[in-house]
Amino acid sequence: MSTTVSPLAPKSFPDMPDIEGVQFSTAAAGIKYEGRTDVLLATVAAGTTIAGVFTNSKCTSAPVDWCKARIGAGKAAALLVNSGNANAFTGKKGYAAVELSADIVAKSLGSSKDEIFLASTGVIGEPLPAEKFSDVVDDLKANQGSANWLEAAKAIMTTDTYPKISTASVELDGKTVAINGIAKGAGMIAPDMATMLSFIFTDAAVAPDVLQNLLAGETCNSFNAVTVDSDTSTSDTVLLLATGAAAERGVDPVTSMDDQRLDVLRAALADVMVDLAHQIVRDGEGARKFVEVRVEGAETDQSAKKIALAIANSPLVKTAVAGEDANWGRVVMAVGKAGEPADRDKLAIWFGDIRVAVEGERDPDYSEAAASAVMKEEDITIKVDLGLSEGKSSVWTCDLTKEYVAINGDYRS
Amino acid sequence: MSTTVSPLAPKSFPDMPDIEGVQFSTAAAGIKYEGRTDVLLATVAAGTTIAGVFTNSKCTSAPVDWCKARIGAGKAAALLVNSGNANAFTGKKGYAAVELSADIVAKSLGSSKDEIFLASTGVIGEPLPAEKFSDVVDDLKANQGSANWLEAAKAIMTTDTYPKISTASVELDGKTVAINGIAKGAGMIAPDMATMLSFIFTDAAVAPDVLQNLLAGETCNSFNAVTVDSDTSTSDTVLLLATGAAAERGVDPVTSMDDQRLDVLRAALADVMVDLAHQIVRDGEGARKFVEVRVEGAETDQSAKKIALAIANSPLVKTAVAGEDANWGRVVMAVGKAGEPADRDKLAIWFGDIRVAVEGERDPDYSEAAASAVMKEEDITIKVDLGLSEGKSSVWTCDLTKEYVAINGDYRS
Repeated sequence: MSTTVSPLAPKSFPDMPDIEGVQFSTAAAGIKYEGRTDVLLATVAAGTTIAGVFTNSKCTSAPVDWCKARIGAGKAAALLVNSGNANAFTGKKGYAAVELSADIVAKSLGSSKDEIFLASTGVIGEPLPAEKFSDVVDDLKANQGSANWLEAAKAIMTTDTYPKISTASVELDGKTVAINGIAKGAGMIAPDMATMLSFIFTDAAVAPDVLQNLLAGETCNSFNAVTVDSDTSTSDTVLLLATGAAAERGVDPVTSMDDQRLDVLRAALADVMVDLAHQIVRDGEGARKFVEVRVEGAETDQSAKKIALAIANSPLVKTAVAGEDANWGRVVMAVGKAGEPADRDKLAIWFGDIRVAVEGERDPDYSEAAASAVMKEEDITIKVDLGLSEGKSSVWTCDLTKEYVAINGDYRS
Repeated sequence: MSTTVSPLAPKSFPDMPDIEGVQFSTAAAGIKYEGRTDVLLATVAAGTTIAGVFTNSKCTSAPVDWCKARIGAGKAAALLVNSGNANAFTGKKGYAAVELSADIVAKSLGSSKDEIFLASTGVIGEPLPAEKFSDVVDDLKANQGSANWLEAAKAIMTTDTYPKISTASVELDGKTVAINGIAKGAGMIAPDMATMLSFIFTDAAVAPDVLQNLLAGETCNSFNAVTVDSDTSTSDTVLLLATGAAAERGVDPVTSMDDQRLDVLRAALADVMVDLAHQIVRDGEGARKFVEVRVEGAETDQSAKKIALAIANSPLVKTAVAGEDANWGRVVMAVGKAGEPADRDKLAIWFGDIRVAVEGERDPDYSEAAASAVMKEEDITIKVDLGLSEGKSSVWTCDLTKEYVAINGDYRS
C-alpha cells in the first residue's frame, strides 16, 4: 500500500447504496502487514447464487483451485478475502491452508464449508498462516453489519494506492435493484487475468447459470481488456453474488437467458465492471497516463483485440507515452508484431483527434505540435484503423515509467 | 549512440581475420546523425552466395521487402547499410528510396541492381533521404579496402553503446576458413526478430540453398533466442554471405546438406551468431544484468522455449532482477502465463546454483542469503525444471531498469 495516491485516481468515491442480503466486516489479522486491515469477511443471505471467472494461469493459487472446484454448484454463504499473502505456489501447505480457512469460517457461521469462497492476494510462495484467521473470526462475525464498501476495498489492497468501488442501479419490474463492486489490483494486470480481485454483489435474484453467463460475457470487455504490464497472476478472481433479496420486493427471479430484463441488468453490470477495470489501470504501478487503445477495421473483433493488446503491452509504446512522445512508429511496430492480418499501406493512426499516419506513411497534414499537445494530456487515446474489415476492440492501459521499475524492483523488501 | 558504454560490454574486441573476397568502407552521409559514420558499403567477390532471415513483422520496412524479393536468387554483389533512418512505414516513398539506393550503388559498381542488398535502422516513419547516398557513393567506392570490422560495426549503430563483432575459424579440407560477423541492436530486441541487423561473411564456398538452411537453422537458437523488451521491429535482417574465395585455396564448395563438413561449419557459424546475439542482449537499453533463462523438463523443446520467453519477457521478473531480488514467485507467475503444459506441484526453480523452489513450494533448504548473493552477480541464470518430459530451451535477456524507461521515453527527441 503506497502513501502516494496515483495522480490518475478518481477525484471522488461514489455513494454506495446498500445491497440487501450482504454484510461485511474487516479485521487486522497481521497476515503480513502491520497496522492495517487485511481480512474481509462478507456474508450473504441464504439462497445467494454465485458465479466466478478465474485466472487462465497454469499455476493457479490454492484459493483459485478451491473456488473453481465449488463455483459450479452456484451457492454461496460467505466470502473470506485476505491481502498480504497470495497462498500461491505453496504446495500441500496451500491446500491445507484453504481447508483450514474455510473450516474456520464455516464453523463460526454454521454453514457448509463448500459455500465458503476464498481469495488471497499478495506475495507468492510464502505459506499462508491461515491459523491467524481463528484469532479474528469471532470479531469478524460479531462485527458483521451493513456493508462498508470503502473499508472492504481497503482491506484487500496490496500495492494499490486507492480503494476501488463502483455502483450502478437499474429498474427491474418497476423496482430498483443495485449492483455494487469492489476491486483491487495494480501491477501484474493483464488479460486472463491479473493480480486482480473483484467482488460484485446484487440484490437481484439470478439463477447460477444465467449469472455465470452474464459474468463471463462482460469480463471480456472489462477486466480482460485492461493491461498494466502483460503479466498474469496466479490468483485472479472475479466473483458475482446475487442475494435475491429483491425478490421479496416483487422483483421476479431471472432464470433464463431469454429473460427480456437481462439487457438492462447486463448493461449495469458492464458499467460496474468497466469502471472497476479502468480504476485498476488508473492505479497501475507508477502510472502517469491512462491510455485507451482502439483498433478498428480489423478482420475480426478477436484480431482487433490481439492487435490492441500488442500495442498496449509494448514497452516501447508505453515508454513513449511516458515521455509524451507521439511516436507512431512504435505503434506500427506493435501492429506488425501482433501476427494478425494487417496491410501496412492501409494503416492509419491517430493520437487523440490528430491523425499522424495514413496509407502507410506520415500524414502529410500532420502537425507535430498538435500531436505533442495530445500527449501532454492525462488521458490519451491511440486509435488504429487497419482498413481491412469491420473488426474492432478497445483495451486500456497505462504508461511505463521509472516508478514502475522502482516499485517492482523493490516489492519484496 | 550513447556516450556511456554498457557495463555488460565485452572487455575486449577479438582480432578479426580477413575474409577473402570482402571489402568494406564507411562514410558519414548525414542521414540523421552528425559527426559520425552512418553508411557501410560492403562489396563481395563475383560468385558470392547469400542467405537471409528477416523479421516476422506484418509491417516490414522497405529494405526488408527489397531483400526478401531478391534473397531467393542467392547472389550478392554488395550490401549498403545505413543507420539513423529505418525506411519503415514510409509508404510509396519507401519503395522509391530503396530503388534509388540500389540504383546508386549498382551504377557506381557496375553491377546488377538485384544483387545489391539493403538494410536500414533507426527512426520509423520518416522518409529516407536516399539521394544523400549519391554524395558519398564515389568515396565509398574509392575507399573500399580490407574490411575494418570494428569501423563497419560502428557505422551501423543506433542506440548501441558498443560495436558488436565476432569471429570463428574452422578447418575445411585441411585449410582454414573464417566466419566474421557484425551486428547492431539494443532495444526492440525480441524473437522474430528485433531492431537487429547482423551481417556475417565467410570465405567458404556454399551453395545458396545450403547457406539458407544453415542460417535459418542457427537463427532459432541465437538471434531468435534473445529478448530485451519483447518488441519486434519492422527491420530485422540477418544476412550470411559466402564469397567462395577459399575454393581457390582448395576448399571444395559445399553444395549439399549431406556434406560431412557441414557439422564443423555449422558449429562455427553457431558460435558467431550466439556470440553476437549475447552481445546484443548485453547492450540492452539500460541493462545492468545479463540473464540466461534455461527451461528443462518441458513437454517439447518448443514448449520449453515459449515458457523461457514468457519468463524472459516478464516485466515483473525483469524488474526483480534489476532489484537483485530472488523473487521466484514471479517466475512461477510467468510459467503460468505461458499457456504451456506445466504442473505447479512438479516445478523446481533455481537462481544460479541455488534451488529456491521444489515440488510446488519453497525449497525447505533454501537460504535467502545464498540466493541474494547470486542476484548480486552480473550474469544470472534462472533455471526452471518442469518435471514433465525432456523438452528444453535457453533464452537470454537483461533486466528492466529505470534507464530503459529513460532511454525509450526520450528516443525521438
